[in-house]
Amino acid sequence: MPPPEASILLIGSELTEGRLADRNGRFLAEELSEMGFRVREIRIFPDDDLSLRAGMREMLQSGVRVLLSAGGLGHTTDDLTAQVWAEVLGDKLEVSSSLLAELEGQLQARGIPSLPYLDRYALVPTRGEALPNPIGLAPALYWEVGLQVICALPGPPAEVQAIWHTSLKPRLQKRFSLTSPLHHTFRTTGITESRLSVLIQEWEAQLPPFVRLSYGPSLEGVALHLRAPGDVPIETFLKEVETLRQLIAPYLYAEGNISLAEAILNELRRKGLTLAIAESCTGGHIAAQIVNIAGASDVFLGSVVSYANSAKEALLGVSPTVLQAEGAVSEVVARQMAEGVCRTFGASVGIATTGIAGPTGGSPEKPVGTVWFGIATPKGTIAKRYILPGDRQTVIQRATALALSLTWQVLRAEK
Amino acid sequence: MPPPEASILLIGSELTEGRLADRNGRFLAEELSEMGFRVREIRIFPDDDLSLRAGMREMLQSGVRVLLSAGGLGHTTDDLTAQVWAEVLGDKLEVSSSLLAELEGQLQARGIPSLPYLDRYALVPTRGEALPNPIGLAPALYWEVGLQVICALPGPPAEVQAIWHTSLKPRLQKRFSLTSPLHHTFRTTGITESRLSVLIQEWEAQLPPFVRLSYGPSLEGVALHLRAPGDVPIETFLKEVETLRQLIAPYLYAEGNISLAEAILNELRRKGLTLAIAESCTGGHIAAQIVNIAGASDVFLGSVVSYANSAKEALLGVSPTVLQAEGAVSEVVARQMAEGVCRTFGASVGIATTGIAGPTGGSPEKPVGTVWFGIATPKGTIAKRYILPGDRQTVIQRATALALSLTWQVLRAEK
Repeated sequence: MPPPEASILLIGSELTEGRLADRNGRFLAEELSEMGFRVREIRIFPDDDLSLRAGMREMLQSGVRVLLSAGGLGHTTDDLTAQVWAEVLGDKLEVSSSLLAELEGQLQARGIPSLPYLDRYALVPTRGEALPNPIGLAPALYWEVGLQVICALPGPPAEVQAIWHTSLKPRLQKRFSLTSPLHHTFRTTGITESRLSVLIQEWEAQLPPFVRLSYGPSLEGVALHLRAPGDVPIETFLKEVETLRQLIAPYLYAEGNISLAEAILNELRRKGLTLAIAESCTGGHIAAQIVNIAGASDVFLGSVVSYANSAKEALLGVSPTVLQAEGAVSEVVARQMAEGVCRTFGASVGIATTGIAGPTGGSPEKPVGTVWFGIATPKGTIAKRYILPGDRQTVIQRATALALSLTWQVLRAEK
Repeated sequence: MPPPEASILLIGSELTEGRLADRNGRFLAEELSEMGFRVREIRIFPDDDLSLRAGMREMLQSGVRVLLSAGGLGHTTDDLTAQVWAEVLGDKLEVSSSLLAELEGQLQARGIPSLPYLDRYALVPTRGEALPNPIGLAPALYWEVGLQVICALPGPPAEVQAIWHTSLKPRLQKRFSLTSPLHHTFRTTGITESRLSVLIQEWEAQLPPFVRLSYGPSLEGVALHLRAPGDVPIETFLKEVETLRQLIAPYLYAEGNISLAEAILNELRRKGLTLAIAESCTGGHIAAQIVNIAGASDVFLGSVVSYANSAKEALLGVSPTVLQAEGAVSEVVARQMAEGVCRTFGASVGIATTGIAGPTGGSPEKPVGTVWFGIATPKGTIAKRYILPGDRQTVIQRATALALSLTWQVLRAEK
């Protein structure tokens, strides 16, 4: 049996005008997918009652079993969602005196005087119900109409998440008997999407039709997601997982939700090694990714951003003669930076970048995008050069991801 | 005359399954809105040819003048966009030998051997054209059909942006005679959204109805956007811009699209000052934001991430006695780090952070989220403490933004 379908409707002119990045669509899509729904589509509309009304009707008529909206439940004039939903569903909203009293109590408890527009938040559908908002004023509105469930959530992501966990998800679990789909994620680095697809093409060709493979490329590498409906025998699924694992083993840095920075920290910890970083063109971005990981401090000792050449000499011990002869963006300087930062911090592994992020500073021999990477470990130092395409920020991002990828490859090779 | 309408279609099961947050919808929505289009809707579909085909037809039939899609232009089996667009538009794709040769050349220039699937990227619509991708393989596909423009862009945000600026936007500008709406953005820091709204409420109450004000809060501060239709007399609009400018002057760090890091670099450059940074809990994030700005190198000399206490002593000259007595997260250490990093790099201004990002390491006196900031300038050193809410990454992000905000406030006060 195919999984029941759900759709998501996000409402707000700040979204269609690009003034704000949506954060609810992804959350709801992930939660619904994990429960076993298939998300048919996500639609984003401006605060405009004609568009909204037409969009809601279309989405209902598509026959999805669950339709969630987020946004437009406030008290200002552009908040239309509640009224338009009621109208489209042939229902009415009425002020609930008990909900109003509850909201008054909530405000009192937080030391806030009552608000003139508070009754706007106490509107309840006569044929639906209001789901309490544990951290804000606007409750969610919830309807069960025939086979369909419709729920209008407020806009702030923290409120959406609170209502989802406390009341909406439990209701959906009760109403639908869902089998969570099977899924497994492999994360690879050091191989392009196209080479990976060649590597696994024979296996992919024999994959049973109910097992779906998808590629998730990012700057750090390519993720492979394997998925199957929840009623597929687990052994069948695990057999494919295991075959794929063997095929991609040389490039596999993690399984599940683990970043490359985290995989590197885990590998260093396992080997009893410590880390220091010397960044020139990446200017702190590599350290920033490392430090995002909880527990980084037991492996990561510190880093230097040596933007000025004098800093490369004083803090990293790069030779002034070499800087003079070869220039800051050169193989020898990358090596000396990686080894120097190990000495400076007393670390066992050093990562170094030196390059030209642009937009200026390039030359025919060293065009913008030229980056030298150095990786020093107790077993030796390697250096590699890449010419990375894109504008300044893209070059920096690519160089940061590549530095992590190369570090992982070096650590893996030394296993 | 109402503005012409545009819609955006984002394609990828990784989006409808919530595995990836979209970054193209907002970019395209903002760019189209700024050009003078009204974005009618943004729709997100999975990689599924039936949904895609139906969705594309519906969106075309809605009569929008511009329809842009992003995603699904790779060479793997789940990349369906090009084929489905061609089918829906009654067109065909054919391998262009000249494009194929160009792509081979691109790979060669980057020292990469040819790819087995390269011809997939050389497919060109017979009744449309391919727009070159300056930083990736997949070109965009572009059609003009009757009154409508359809363009299929690849998925990676950097490629979407590069193609937009180099070829898609110029084409749209040529084809549509648009009146760009009037808009002006003020960027403030050091004041909350609610205090700002009180500060400007009298002015806001008398605003003519065709001038729209909206708030854009972020970690760095609050942006104020003023907007009016393109046919409003410019003097009327500029009068309101000027009044608002006066009201918020003490908090205004920039007008237009300028980040706080860029405003700080500009201010330092104007004063002939140089910058160095000492980061503990922010671990490179402040330097990373500074380095993202083109031309940072003439002001920014470098930074140290002193995760280990020994690095605070050796590289920044923090007193071991103070570290022992007060702990690393303390006012004196923040001051010594800021002053020390100025000495280390020979810089005139130093920014320092030391704090507990969590999830562990907190205590009753210094709970998780405690961060001390130090700012040293030629006129003296200040230190401030904040207790920031949220998980590890949120604390790091807030501390990074706050360090920049405090630096700007100190520089502004010293004017």
